[in-house]
Amino acid sequence: MSDFRITYTGWNPPEQKLREALCTLGNGYVSTRGAAEERCADEHNYPGTYLAGGYNRAKTEISGNIVENEDLVNFPNWLFLSFRPEHGEWLNLDLFTVLDYTQTLDMQHGLLLRSFKVEDGDGRRTSIESRRLVSMEHMHMAAIEWRLTPENWSGQIELRSALDGTVVNGGVDRYSDLEKLHLDPVCTEAIDDESILLKVKCRQSDLAVSLAASTRITEAAGQTDVTRETHEREKYIDQLLRFSVEEGGSYHIEKIVAIYSSRDRACAESSLEARKAVSRTGGFRELLSMQEAAYRKLWHRADITSTAGERHQQLLRLHIFHVLQTVSPNTIGLDVGVPARGWHGEAYRGHIFWDELFIFPFLNLRFPEISRSLLMYRYYRLDEARFAAEEAGYKGAMYPWQSGSNGREETQVLHLNPESGRWNPDITHLQRHVNSAIAYNIWNYYQATEDQLFLSYFGAEMFCEIAAFWGSKVEYNEERDRYEIHSVVGPDEYHTAYPDAEEGGLNNNAYTNVMAAWVLQKALLILDMIEESRRNELLTERSINDEQLALWKEASKKMFIPINEEGIIEQFEGYEQLKEFPWEEYREKYNDIMRLDRILESEGDTPNNYKASKQADVLMLFYLFNDDELRDIFTTLGYSFSVEMITRNIAYYRKRTSHGSTLSRLVFSWVLLKHDKQQSWQDFETLLSSDFEDIQGGTTHEGIHLGAMAGSLDLIQRNYAGLEVCEDVLWLKPDIPVHIDELFMRVQYRRHWISITISSKSIRVSFEEGWSNTVNIGVIDRVHEFRHGEEKEFPISR
Amino acid sequence: MSDFRITYTGWNPPEQKLREALCTLGNGYVSTRGAAEERCADEHNYPGTYLAGGYNRAKTEISGNIVENEDLVNFPNWLFLSFRPEHGEWLNLDLFTVLDYTQTLDMQHGLLLRSFKVEDGDGRRTSIESRRLVSMEHMHMAAIEWRLTPENWSGQIELRSALDGTVVNGGVDRYSDLEKLHLDPVCTEAIDDESILLKVKCRQSDLAVSLAASTRITEAAGQTDVTRETHEREKYIDQLLRFSVEEGGSYHIEKIVAIYSSRDRACAESSLEARKAVSRTGGFRELLSMQEAAYRKLWHRADITSTAGERHQQLLRLHIFHVLQTVSPNTIGLDVGVPARGWHGEAYRGHIFWDELFIFPFLNLRFPEISRSLLMYRYYRLDEARFAAEEAGYKGAMYPWQSGSNGREETQVLHLNPESGRWNPDITHLQRHVNSAIAYNIWNYYQATEDQLFLSYFGAEMFCEIAAFWGSKVEYNEERDRYEIHSVVGPDEYHTAYPDAEEGGLNNNAYTNVMAAWVLQKALLILDMIEESRRNELLTERSINDEQLALWKEASKKMFIPINEEGIIEQFEGYEQLKEFPWEEYREKYNDIMRLDRILESEGDTPNNYKASKQADVLMLFYLFNDDELRDIFTTLGYSFSVEMITRNIAYYRKRTSHGSTLSRLVFSWVLLKHDKQQSWQDFETLLSSDFEDIQGGTTHEGIHLGAMAGSLDLIQRNYAGLEVCEDVLWLKPDIPVHIDELFMRVQYRRHWISITISSKSIRVSFEEGWSNTVNIGVIDRVHEFRHGEEKEFPISR
Repeated sequence: MSDFRITYTGWNPPEQKLREALCTLGNGYVSTRGAAEERCADEHNYPGTYLAGGYNRAKTEISGNIVENEDLVNFPNWLFLSFRPEHGEWLNLDLFTVLDYTQTLDMQHGLLLRSFKVEDGDGRRTSIESRRLVSMEHMHMAAIEWRLTPENWSGQIELRSALDGTVVNGGVDRYSDLEKLHLDPVCTEAIDDESILLKVKCRQSDLAVSLAASTRITEAAGQTDVTRETHEREKYIDQLLRFSVEEGGSYHIEKIVAIYSSRDRACAESSLEARKAVSRTGGFRELLSMQEAAYRKLWHRADITSTAGERHQQLLRLHIFHVLQTVSPNTIGLDVGVPARGWHGEAYRGHIFWDELFIFPFLNLRFPEISRSLLMYRYYRLDEARFAAEEAGYKGAMYPWQSGSNGREETQVLHLNPESGRWNPDITHLQRHVNSAIAYNIWNYYQATEDQLFLSYFGAEMFCEIAAFWGSKVEYNEERDRYEIHSVVGPDEYHTAYPDAEEGGLNNNAYTNVMAAWVLQKALLILDMIEESRRNELLTERSINDEQLALWKEASKKMFIPINEEGIIEQFEGYEQLKEFPWEEYREKYNDIMRLDRILESEGDTPNNYKASKQADVLMLFYLFNDDELRDIFTTLGYSFSVEMITRNIAYYRKRTSHGSTLSRLVFSWVLLKHDKQQSWQDFETLLSSDFEDIQGGTTHEGIHLGAMAGSLDLIQRNYAGLEVCEDVLWLKPDIPVHIDELFMRVQYRRHWISITISSKSIRVSFEEGWSNTVNIGVIDRVHEFRHGEEKEFPISR
Repeated sequence: MSDFRITYTGWNPPEQKLREALCTLGNGYVSTRGAAEERCADEHNYPGTYLAGGYNRAKTEISGNIVENEDLVNFPNWLFLSFRPEHGEWLNLDLFTVLDYTQTLDMQHGLLLRSFKVEDGDGRRTSIESRRLVSMEHMHMAAIEWRLTPENWSGQIELRSALDGTVVNGGVDRYSDLEKLHLDPVCTEAIDDESILLKVKCRQSDLAVSLAASTRITEAAGQTDVTRETHEREKYIDQLLRFSVEEGGSYHIEKIVAIYSSRDRACAESSLEARKAVSRTGGFRELLSMQEAAYRKLWHRADITSTAGERHQQLLRLHIFHVLQTVSPNTIGLDVGVPARGWHGEAYRGHIFWDELFIFPFLNLRFPEISRSLLMYRYYRLDEARFAAEEAGYKGAMYPWQSGSNGREETQVLHLNPESGRWNPDITHLQRHVNSAIAYNIWNYYQATEDQLFLSYFGAEMFCEIAAFWGSKVEYNEERDRYEIHSVVGPDEYHTAYPDAEEGGLNNNAYTNVMAAWVLQKALLILDMIEESRRNELLTERSINDEQLALWKEASKKMFIPINEEGIIEQFEGYEQLKEFPWEEYREKYNDIMRLDRILESEGDTPNNYKASKQADVLMLFYLFNDDELRDIFTTLGYSFSVEMITRNIAYYRKRTSHGSTLSRLVFSWVLLKHDKQQSWQDFETLLSSDFEDIQGGTTHEGIHLGAMAGSLDLIQRNYAGLEVCEDVLWLKPDIPVHIDELFMRVQYRRHWISITISSKSIRVSFEEGWSNTVNIGVIDRVHEFRHGEEKEFPISR
């Protein structure tokens, strides 16, 4: 199917970095444990950027700022394969004449296909059909296959198959002053005639990584006489294969590679396991058929089909695909989080932000076990968050904005503006709202799964610690009889301080305050839900006394939200006093003003002075909660709320946003659905193509924007299909745009699989299978009891 | 409470090894990750045997047998603390005069207390009160505290506080020819005035382990002038503290230690984390109060009280305590299994056998999350088991009898008989029944928890693969129209071959056959239970076709069981033809004939020639299944079954068993309850004290017998309280011995906590708390619906 494939034709060097980022292969495990990305370093001399969950001490002094603890490590290039005709040059698309080039990401089967024909300086034309995979089924394996044809020459050919650990972290230009080298050599070895081994060690984490590769010539048109030669040097081993080829012949070469680390489960020693895996695995064909089967399973669960056109469908699948390249059934239990840019590039050095917030809705209803594992990642860093809270003088746990490998705060203290070349102080670590995002994720994971064991142990503990943090962070304002939150930064990173203030931080960021109130309220509810003994344990162990609980209750009802008389929710207290920003002037002057912060800083100004947002964080509330929930929250807080308020706030902030974050489009498209369908659709289309077309101009090849990608799926699911879990019912309240005739998806709700088809005319729901005989599904406004195997269709009146 | 403490008074060197084994401290994590045992290496010059889940290549040739891949590593001695008076000798109980000695294991709080007074060669008397703990709350920490009093001298004193990585694996004499050295040095460092660091690396697994220790003199009766000196050598660092003491003064010294490994979650680098932990942790008192709280929680869930006397209660608690020293909430997710001897000694080198079978019943109903983690340990070794099956020509998965770190078979090929000094071939790896034990555990975990997510993914996959193995292992005997299983060894390791047979292995071991039939039948049931899509996935992925399923069904109904006309189930086909063993003669000759195999071998004979069992494996069936289940199994197989058959089989095998395994007592006590109460109680008492009194004479100090320990708890729970989960009801059908007036326990059943008090007169059941408002509990013969908070009492008519 063409909408399962993304194809690039023609060799286009300027675009190639972007293409490679979008064609990155992984399988979750490989991404976090070893070679994160399977780009085409081998075939085209592009630097391979292989990343991992290994951690390296990179002490580099930059303008007095010690950058320590890199959380990404560039990993050995493992599928390296190259060739040269006798006395010729090694394959190099920049030096050779490229006569033909097609690159296809086959998402349906998890393959990267390349077909190209090159001519070397001596006029020798060679064509190659290449297929590569990173196995989803056998998480330690990857493979590449070549079919090589000398088009107009005969003679000796040399193949080079390498395991190259000399790679560095070099994928992001502006990090070039940071320590790039993260691997120490351990050993190389020629295992047997066909196989080689490379073992390296991460410099900081002591993580040992072993790669074993076996290179075979499977069909060689009457050619059996192959000589092999192994070369070893520090952190590098290759095998040269020499044989003679004949004009027009077809030569099949395959390379099977295994990767293991010393942190792996069931691993006696990583090189032992890698050797074993390569020797036990069949050839490319076997791995290919396993790959097809594994992807068939994944797509059965994960696919979302929409009739809005081929490109639209392709991009939806691209987003699903990359979510599953980053986290997958293979990452369950691996103690890894979801970095903001997937494992697709080095931007943000693998740090974990709040992006799970956008990714969980998709995972919860399809792969809840992955969600659980991601939440456990946070749980295992709870002690570090407790320490951070204590250090800062708070109770409970304070999760960091940029979380490093061991859960420490890794937000940079200085930030480089490439526009001005200046390093500026950075206080974005004051984004305490990340804590509420984690709580929100716990709650919604539980809603989707009813996983009581998780909730009462790990979930409740994290939730209460986050609530305890908010409980100690709020300040009572007697005059207002309200609780306030001071000195924070909201999701909109353009605003970090008041104009001319000496200290950073803002007061009463509306998003932060509402979320904190929500957390406090839900924490009390969770304490009521879980077993008494567990509640008592938790309260005793964490020294949460009645006084504190009373404060939580009080603050959850009396949190201050800055709302003006027109019902505009101020982004933070004092936002209204800021100057309006001359948008037109700057749009004309700079064309692209998405990174307004950098532009202003280079002019000696700052967005802190203006009503100008990177993303409108007030609107996040309308994204996270539906109208009923919002009404509930606001009413509990004693503020009036009307749906009409939403419209007004959208209009207000739309005018004042630069969309400097990919997430901004998501939020606008979402909230506009009910208020301006056309604009909503337009924003959705921009969102869909934001990585594909690299709309930020050069950020995608540093890593995809996983939050935005997953957000687009969530938008279809929660916004268009109107799917949500509320009071033990799976609700469907669709509102699909006119551009889509029919939507189809399959979701897992509390161990039941439900398939859903929505058109403009009707909603078809089928209770395909599950663990109980009945399930309650709400359609539009009524709850229906579905029996196992039952399918019902409901007309939509427009 | 005295029944929470085990106290030894008087210094008794011959007994000390046993005492230390029984007083081992751990917390699950520390056991498997670092210093497994906290014995008194420091204080009394006993070699510390610290074990870990690190793995080391120990290539030692013994009679041609390469012993490779040690699965235990002796870990650094971390709580080492010693002293010497000026110009005196270092503390040494073997050289000093011991005037007073008391050692107490305080199980209630997880402490080891020691109080002793020594006199050195110069007549200087010093008394020490020592308390030590391995933190259950903060799994990376341990601590020791001394209160030292110079009774009759004043002057300078030197304290030595060390981290000693020069330890070797030396705990089991007969392994002395194996490689003992497993740690390579990395570094030592004096961190600051108070703290030192040791980092070592496991030679095979590349696991890096870091220990940081901080030694403080907290109260020193007017003494502040302490000089410190650090000494470092390879794999060793210590700190000497010198200060002057006065006669009668009281000096408080404490040492806080942290351990981290490179395999830990949320670990950037092990020494970094260890340093951090030591610097962040308060003193001994803080750790002590956390320890008390953590143990309060554990005992609330885990305690079983019985009125059969103080010793009885002590031993029950000792067993609970050691289960929780081996696996605990701290081991959840760590990819560790339960070794046969806990982590308490080096016997069996940490290999994983079938002991979970005896440990799961206790865990499932109290700490189901630990059970799940242990099952996942098996799941992560499923690929290795698949490979083993394939290599041996079978389908599915064949788990090893002795499972090494990566799931490979580690059963020795030669076995040393210390009686004869001969190395004999060992084919006990043919104990394929271990596969059925894993399946049984999966099923019973599910029964206790209703964990559907686990069952449909991990559980069903393992279960089906084990069923597929049996499906390919059975052989159809046309003459009998029965399926048979050939060439195996049952749990009774005395019988491994037919007399004078050239090949090892026996046919139709009754236990193996019944369990295989049960597995096949339950596999089909599970396939019916799980979601259709998951079933289809599984069948497709594992290539299980209709033909195979039909065979499973057929074989589950037509498995051959060797039963003679008197209803005696033959241990294996042909057992009846073996000679009777002259028990009296040997009992007179050898006094202790528990290890009859060794005796006979040293005489040039073998138990294979006799009706003589180490443990009666037929009786295992009566232990695992209740009468109704047994009737069901036998009837399905077309064999008649009567309860009276059980009595006959017990009588038959009792006469023919040497009780060479601690598990044998468990099984006999269990099955006799209904048939010979007095003998049953006697066996139970032997079982209870088997480690405490080291009834096998010298095996306990090589590691406790965890299966037997946990089995004694299961016996109280399932046999005396008659507690079982059957068709979604928690049943209680008590049958308590006259020696017990009242039994109390608390169990968790499908997220409900139920407390149970059973006396000879009544059964009191209280539905304390849970996730639903009602729960069905069957008492004796009727199902009662309990509402949340409800307590009911039922009289027992005798």
